[in-house]
Amino acid sequence: MRNIKLTLQYDGTNYHGWQVQPGLPTVQGTIEDKLHEIFKERVRITGAGRTDVGVHALGQVANFKIENRISAQAILRALNSLLPRDIAVVDACEIDLSFHARYSAKRKLYKYLIVRTPHPSPFKRNYAYHCSRPLDLNAMRLACGYLIGEHDFSSFRAADLMQGDPMRTIYSLEITDKADLLEFYIEASGFLKHMARNIVGTLLEVGLGRREPLGVRDALELKDRRAAGPSAPQHGLYLVSVTY
Amino acid sequence: MRNIKLTLQYDGTNYHGWQVQPGLPTVQGTIEDKLHEIFKERVRITGAGRTDVGVHALGQVANFKIENRISAQAILRALNSLLPRDIAVVDACEIDLSFHARYSAKRKLYKYLIVRTPHPSPFKRNYAYHCSRPLDLNAMRLACGYLIGEHDFSSFRAADLMQGDPMRTIYSLEITDKADLLEFYIEASGFLKHMARNIVGTLLEVGLGRREPLGVRDALELKDRRAAGPSAPQHGLYLVSVTY
Repeated sequence: MRNIKLTLQYDGTNYHGWQVQPGLPTVQGTIEDKLHEIFKERVRITGAGRTDVGVHALGQVANFKIENRISAQAILRALNSLLPRDIAVVDACEIDLSFHARYSAKRKLYKYLIVRTPHPSPFKRNYAYHCSRPLDLNAMRLACGYLIGEHDFSSFRAADLMQGDPMRTIYSLEITDKADLLEFYIEASGFLKHMARNIVGTLLEVGLGRREPLGVRDALELKDRRAAGPSAPQHGLYLVSVTY
Repeated sequence: MRNIKLTLQYDGTNYHGWQVQPGLPTVQGTIEDKLHEIFKERVRITGAGRTDVGVHALGQVANFKIENRISAQAILRALNSLLPRDIAVVDACEIDLSFHARYSAKRKLYKYLIVRTPHPSPFKRNYAYHCSRPLDLNAMRLACGYLIGEHDFSSFRAADLMQGDPMRTIYSLEITDKADLLEFYIEASGFLKHMARNIVGTLLEVGLGRREPLGVRDALELKDRRAAGPSAPQHGLYLVSVTY
C-alpha cells in the first residue's frame, strides 16, 4: 500500500465546497471521479480543510492510499490532464503511510481578500469581498491582538455546529494593505466551521466603527455565537497552506 | 437630445464579444437590454472597440443618445444595479452631441497578459494565457521596434476580413515583466480585427526562438496574413483605455 499526498489549487466558484455531497459538484468528488478514471477503482481522498461553497484554495492538501505502482509525478500529470481547469494539482509525492491530511496538520493558513475600489470590479466579483466604505485599520489591528493565542472560539463558530472542542490557537493574524486590496492572514492550529469568516466579519464591524476593538475580546469571552459579528462572504476566503 | 458617454469594465468570459448577435449573449446586447428597462424604449449604444469572444475590458467606452433628462450619475447607478456582476459602469457623463465612441477615438490601448507559472493557475484560466516555456525577452523587445510607427498591418489582420484601409500607427509597444506575469501594452491609432492578438502571437514565436526578430519586419513587409504568426488566445486580451 502507498500513501500519496497532493497539493491543490482551486477556484471554488463553481463547487459546493470541498466535501462530497450527493448530486452536487464538489472539489473532492471531482478529483475522486478522475482518480477512478486513472486507477479503474474508487479511491477515497482526505482533505486537510473542508472548504465551504465558493471558498478557494491556493494550497489545499489531500491524501489517498492505493496499491498501484504508478509514480506520483505520473499521477500529477494524469490528474491535471483530466481535471477541469478550475482545479490544479501543483505537487504530488509519496509519503509515510501514517500521514493523514487532516489529522496530521499542525497549522493552517487562511487568507481573506477585500477589494476597496469605488465600484465593484467584474474581475474580483468571485475572488474578493467588495467594501468601499472607509475602514479604521488601526482599530482592526488592535482588535486582532485579542484573538491571538489559545482561546475558546465558540463565539466564532457556525451556530449550527456547536459540538466538539472549541479550543484553538491563533498563531498570527495580520492585515496587510496594498493599493486597493486588504488582505487578512490568519494562521491557527485549526479552524472551527466558519471561524475564519466570522473573525473577518467581526473585524469589519470594528473597522466600520460599529464595535470597539475591546468588543472583540468581550465576544470571545461570552462564548456565544450571537456575541460576535456576521460571517464575511465566502468568495473572499482562500486556504493558503497547511503545515505538517 | 443628449449624448451619454459610458466607461465600462467587463469580464468577457461569458460573452460572445461586444457586438450584438441574435440569440447570443453579448456585452452590447446586455447593456442595451438594461437601458431598455430604464428608459422603456430601445436604445442603441456604440462601443469604441468591438472586443471578441472572451476578450476583457478595463476601460471600454460607449455612447448613446436619449431625450430623457435623467442625470448621467443616475444612469450609472441604475445600470450598475441592473447589470450582471461581470459588467460594471465605472463612469458616465454627458458629452457633446458630436462625440462618437468609435469614430472620435484617437488612440486605443490594449494589454495582453501571459502567466508563466510552472502549472496553469485555476485563477488565471480565463484571464491570462499560460506559457511556462522560457521566452527570450530581449529578442521580443527587439522585434517590437519593427512594429512601432505607421505601417500597413495586412499581415496582422484577420484573414477573413481583408477590406478597408490596413494602415495603422502603433505609438508604443512595451513588454513588462513582473514576477510570474508578462504584460504586453500596445497603443495604436486603431486596431484591425485580431491585430493585437496576431502581434502577440508573432512576438511569442520570436520569444520561443522560432522566428528571428527581423522576421517580424519581413512579415510586415509581405502584407500577407500567412507571413505572421498565429493569434494569441482571446482570454489574455484587455481593452485598457481609449483616448479622444
